[in-house]
Amino acid sequence: MSDIPTLIDIQSAAERIEKHIHRTPVLTNSAIDTMVDANLYFKCENFQKVGAFKARGALNAVLGLTEEEVSKGVATHSSGNHAAALALAARSRGVPAYIVMPDNAPRVKKEAVSAYGAEITYCTPTLKDREDSLAKVVERTGAVFIPPFNDYRIITGQATAALELFEQVPDLDIVMAPVGGGGLLSGTALSALYISPSTSVIGAEPEGADDAWHSFRAGKIIPSEKPDTIADGLLTSLGDLTFEIIKRYVDDIVTIDDEVIISTTRLIMERMKIVVEPSAAVPLATLLGKRLNVSGKRVGIILSGGNIDLDNFPF
Amino acid sequence: MSDIPTLIDIQSAAERIEKHIHRTPVLTNSAIDTMVDANLYFKCENFQKVGAFKARGALNAVLGLTEEEVSKGVATHSSGNHAAALALAARSRGVPAYIVMPDNAPRVKKEAVSAYGAEITYCTPTLKDREDSLAKVVERTGAVFIPPFNDYRIITGQATAALELFEQVPDLDIVMAPVGGGGLLSGTALSALYISPSTSVIGAEPEGADDAWHSFRAGKIIPSEKPDTIADGLLTSLGDLTFEIIKRYVDDIVTIDDEVIISTTRLIMERMKIVVEPSAAVPLATLLGKRLNVSGKRVGIILSGGNIDLDNFPF
Repeated sequence: MSDIPTLIDIQSAAERIEKHIHRTPVLTNSAIDTMVDANLYFKCENFQKVGAFKARGALNAVLGLTEEEVSKGVATHSSGNHAAALALAARSRGVPAYIVMPDNAPRVKKEAVSAYGAEITYCTPTLKDREDSLAKVVERTGAVFIPPFNDYRIITGQATAALELFEQVPDLDIVMAPVGGGGLLSGTALSALYISPSTSVIGAEPEGADDAWHSFRAGKIIPSEKPDTIADGLLTSLGDLTFEIIKRYVDDIVTIDDEVIISTTRLIMERMKIVVEPSAAVPLATLLGKRLNVSGKRVGIILSGGNIDLDNFPF
Repeated sequence: MSDIPTLIDIQSAAERIEKHIHRTPVLTNSAIDTMVDANLYFKCENFQKVGAFKARGALNAVLGLTEEEVSKGVATHSSGNHAAALALAARSRGVPAYIVMPDNAPRVKKEAVSAYGAEITYCTPTLKDREDSLAKVVERTGAVFIPPFNDYRIITGQATAALELFEQVPDLDIVMAPVGGGGLLSGTALSALYISPSTSVIGAEPEGADDAWHSFRAGKIIPSEKPDTIADGLLTSLGDLTFEIIKRYVDDIVTIDDEVIISTTRLIMERMKIVVEPSAAVPLATLLGKRLNVSGKRVGIILSGGNIDLDNFPF
């Protein structure tokens, strides 16, 4: 743990990516505040480039590569927002992006990745085939593999979302982020540690993919065996780097079922008039589902993304 | 025309309603800018109280009433956003609101009006039955009728949206607003006249309810006979007060068909991650449909509202 990202690392990342990302706004909603008897501050990463916070980590990783390292392009496997984020980041360096996607990925996500000019290689939707296909792509192209979350450059990039939030809203009692692979949550915990140490950090996870909840309590990584949740951005399990930070600097993990996640996704769209994906609704869902009492508190919530299929709402 | 609202009237309205409304943000989107080769500034009245700019006019009218005038409550007929806006405004004065609604109004709008504590009287969906029902309600209750658009207090209230926009974004070449009854467009024209006279004012209207287009060209009011458009906030025809201002101070009216309005509604939700109703998408739709060339210009667009039925998207 001696080499976990420092405040300087996070501030350098913020500077590195500044011109390429949006400083996203913080929205409030008095009707939702009344429902949970608290003051909620929603950090709108659904408005971020590629529609998700993932742009931060991918840009930080890719912009930090030397000309030589990046010359043959970058590669990853992803069915979701990291794929589009990496494609965007590669474009910013003028190099190719090679993305391995499962052939059952949503059309809208395939199109987004193509639109950023990335080369897609389709594979069957198993982790083994994803990794094998990626290895072949890397061998063929010489591209650098940029992992989706278990990487300090990625964690440091994601940490910049909370860094901004603490600048925009001082004196938060609690900050909440959804947890899948743990890149956003570990980054959020580090920014809180350095910038706002009196703020509690809470991760929110779907019951159908609750490896972080189990791992946090067991003190060791216990991967999800058959994750199943509407929050498709949170299916992955923690990595060793994200878990070490979460174990040490996150105050608690709370979970909530898909039914509440779905109704909360709808509530955010109806009341706040913003488009969010189910993964982004998970922290508020834990409050509405009474898994965490925040009465009287000032709570920052990172709305992680807005890439939902408008043809197929879960509600 | 000697008594059209002055700059002082608009500024007084802004002050009167300030504590009751949101100063809505202005959003930009580089992908959409590229599509129309311009810099677009979206004034997000979909984030306004009751989800639409209508809160401004209704609050200005109701807050301007004396204690005696308002003592028996306020009343209107409306199937849409003005109903919810008037219910909100009445609540802010602690008086009853009586709303006559056609019995075929969308469930979501009925619920919104009820949620603000208004008393709803249902009628058949004809203008005659609406007016007859309203007359009975006013006679029974002694409530004051607050019209939806053809009223200087309403026009002055709606004008505060553009007033804010001109403060938030200087040097606009063009400002665009959708036009139904003309409250928003006439108010926008007055704010431009007083605050930013070099800015052109363009109204955008659905082809299926193009009375403003015809009236503007004929120089006299020509009501729509059988208006039919997905933009359900723009079905009404101009009133004499709104038309006089539009005739004099609006530079042009442009129209667009429902197909483009629908695809534009979807585009805004997908790209900007905000929820808008079809009426709000009409100005951008006229640009994407090439009814107006704004190449190289700075264009302010008022996104009028976000009350769309999430169960029944038009796309």
